[in-house]
Amino acid sequence: MSERTLVQQLQSREDGPVSVSGWVETVRDQKKVQFVILRDETGAVQLVNPATRPAEDGTEQDAAALALTDLISNLSTGTFLTATGELKHDERVKLGGVEIKISGLEIAAAALPETPIAADSGLDKRMDWRFIDLRQRRNNLVFRVQTTLEHAMRSYWIERDYIEVHSPKLMASPSESNAELFEVPYFEEKMAYLAQSPQFFKQMAQVAGFGKIFEIAPAFRADPSFTSRHATEFTSIDAEISWIDSHEDVARMQEELLQTAIRAVAEKHGDEIKALFDIDVVVPELPFPRIPLAEAREIVAARGYEIPRTDGDLDPEGERQIAAHVQETYGHQFVFVTDYHPEIRAFYHMRDEETGLTKSYDLLFNGVEITTGAQREHRVDVLIEQAKEKGLDPEHLDFYLDFFRFGAPPHGGFGMGLARVLMLLLGQDSIREVTYLFRGPTRLAP
Amino acid sequence: MSERTLVQQLQSREDGPVSVSGWVETVRDQKKVQFVILRDETGAVQLVNPATRPAEDGTEQDAAALALTDLISNLSTGTFLTATGELKHDERVKLGGVEIKISGLEIAAAALPETPIAADSGLDKRMDWRFIDLRQRRNNLVFRVQTTLEHAMRSYWIERDYIEVHSPKLMASPSESNAELFEVPYFEEKMAYLAQSPQFFKQMAQVAGFGKIFEIAPAFRADPSFTSRHATEFTSIDAEISWIDSHEDVARMQEELLQTAIRAVAEKHGDEIKALFDIDVVVPELPFPRIPLAEAREIVAARGYEIPRTDGDLDPEGERQIAAHVQETYGHQFVFVTDYHPEIRAFYHMRDEETGLTKSYDLLFNGVEITTGAQREHRVDVLIEQAKEKGLDPEHLDFYLDFFRFGAPPHGGFGMGLARVLMLLLGQDSIREVTYLFRGPTRLAP
Repeated sequence: MSERTLVQQLQSREDGPVSVSGWVETVRDQKKVQFVILRDETGAVQLVNPATRPAEDGTEQDAAALALTDLISNLSTGTFLTATGELKHDERVKLGGVEIKISGLEIAAAALPETPIAADSGLDKRMDWRFIDLRQRRNNLVFRVQTTLEHAMRSYWIERDYIEVHSPKLMASPSESNAELFEVPYFEEKMAYLAQSPQFFKQMAQVAGFGKIFEIAPAFRADPSFTSRHATEFTSIDAEISWIDSHEDVARMQEELLQTAIRAVAEKHGDEIKALFDIDVVVPELPFPRIPLAEAREIVAARGYEIPRTDGDLDPEGERQIAAHVQETYGHQFVFVTDYHPEIRAFYHMRDEETGLTKSYDLLFNGVEITTGAQREHRVDVLIEQAKEKGLDPEHLDFYLDFFRFGAPPHGGFGMGLARVLMLLLGQDSIREVTYLFRGPTRLAP
Repeated sequence: MSERTLVQQLQSREDGPVSVSGWVETVRDQKKVQFVILRDETGAVQLVNPATRPAEDGTEQDAAALALTDLISNLSTGTFLTATGELKHDERVKLGGVEIKISGLEIAAAALPETPIAADSGLDKRMDWRFIDLRQRRNNLVFRVQTTLEHAMRSYWIERDYIEVHSPKLMASPSESNAELFEVPYFEEKMAYLAQSPQFFKQMAQVAGFGKIFEIAPAFRADPSFTSRHATEFTSIDAEISWIDSHEDVARMQEELLQTAIRAVAEKHGDEIKALFDIDVVVPELPFPRIPLAEAREIVAARGYEIPRTDGDLDPEGERQIAAHVQETYGHQFVFVTDYHPEIRAFYHMRDEETGLTKSYDLLFNGVEITTGAQREHRVDVLIEQAKEKGLDPEHLDFYLDFFRFGAPPHGGFGMGLARVLMLLLGQDSIREVTYLFRGPTRLAP
């Protein structure tokens, strides 16, 4: 690879010859001097060139100098190039206190002169040109934060001997429900389905004796909704563990995991997040508050909000009310809402023998649900009864029920939407802003 | 969570009360004494119980002792349970030098008495019952090796400031070729396609100024073949980097990455791999040998093998011959075969201006291709010409070509099949053995 200096390394380098590579952010083409702001993945630097213009009196000028000036005058925003020149520290230069006097420019690929979007273009337009939109510092930071967040989570798990699995996304049967299912015509006129979650397969790892597993992978929902929190394809963070006593063991793992991951983000990117998003990343304290759903509903009612849903669950405004209550009472951004009625939970959630409520939780972060966690029912006869109660035909679930017929440990886990966590961590309005390439009912490209 | 001791911790624990959880591997039900081998995710331990049988002379026996004996007599293989008892170190016990005298057994879920497969069942039958098959020590080890391998690779990248991306698997256009494409009926009678690779989207990260990226994610090929190396869904390890001079920069990154990852596996699992697979994990030395394709063909011919392919590429036997040559000549398990003719490469591979050959390589590991790497063509006019030459309609590629119209850096990368690496590292015959749940033309379940 060529001798390339990253922009962030310039400040600590001595004055002298240097080569930087990146894309043109702006050109200021003054009569006597030209400035180019060049950005790479680590920062931006000012390039400077004393302009050599054709003399009005016809005096011969240096041909190379004329050509360089002309080249810079014609640089379009977005052009990727390598600039060589003399690095000079100069505290008058606002951008990092250094500039580079250009000796040569090598253009890798020139941009068309008209950039189709600007930083303040509408979200949909920016998504049309996502590859240009992602050049913005804020957007670049989103994915560096994503990288740190995920690596901290995986490291947490691996230090604790979790196994990483890659469960299949092509399935012969639906994983969660028959609704919102993408169908894929398969060989010999069979039909496959895209996995809505790794639910069944991460449970399979438990009966396979894997003990503790995790997976970060795409999941698919043919969900026609256009909310700021839904996508037809999303990155799901999943973990599942054996030999638990209840969902409380899962919650304890998840809160530790999130504390570890958010701490890593705060340490590595806290200042930059403050500068670019005006957000103070708060490392959450343990334990996160827990509120049973029935109590949560009472709190919401006492705050004067009447939940219109009749199924006993919270609605988005109810979730915001609970989050506000938790913030006021405990100064915490997270809350586990627990003990959901079986009617509003999946058939495989285990039920508490005394209360009849599920051993499950939702985790809210700043008022938005990011997770459902639960202990799973591992006793096949109970599981079949619960499936029937939901109107499901156990025969259609046979491949899944088989998992529990040859021995099974008590187990549970959670699924968490990566984009929701990033959205809330960075104070964004929509998962579209924090997804590399969003997929929705009317969005399949680029 | 209950006080559970992992089997591997038992040796370092003092004699006394203990509780272990796992599944029944074998029961030896002798008249006077009963032995249970209980396995968990970390190992196996012998449980022992002095049998209490109904006395022939009708003498009254301890009811609890009779019940425990009866329970053990009826334990089926695969039953998950928690055993409490007294740990005792005894060097006469072959299995780890410890045993547990049972005081109580709590069954989590009993297995049906007939296990449908045995360790020596055929591969297809074992795949039908993969969740039982995975309880084998060897199979469990495969996925612990996978975990270590991937974490070492991600750590390598993250220490070097790579960004992790999650590119979409639902696309509006094919990513690589129109052949072997899974179609997904989408909203409003549109058609989506499953990504055959993240190729276009990892290149998009380069024009977005991300610099260096990686992704480990599923890829889909509607490939009707039944070889030991192909699947309809597989885990693809991808990286892409900017500002390279040639594919050589990509190769250098990849060989370092593999050395790092294989060293991590050797250090953590080398002894166990030797014990269970009789394989010595060799940490490859740098640099890996490089052989231009034309020279490779000459070497194969000189070894007396005539490649039947007429397109100038190697066939599987040719790859094995080259691997044998490299092993004999350099004592190395890896070889980069370089400089492929454009006719046998994708349209987006950059070509060397002097030779007209592509700036690309295949990486062979023990004679099997695990990777294609290349510098990509980033000049849109050249790219369009190369697409046309392949008979592709640039209009159908417009969304991809747009990436290069607004500036682009020189860049390149590789894609590597995770299962192939694991298969070769562990000396297995088929990727089916090292895939959590294999997907092929006739295999969609479990």
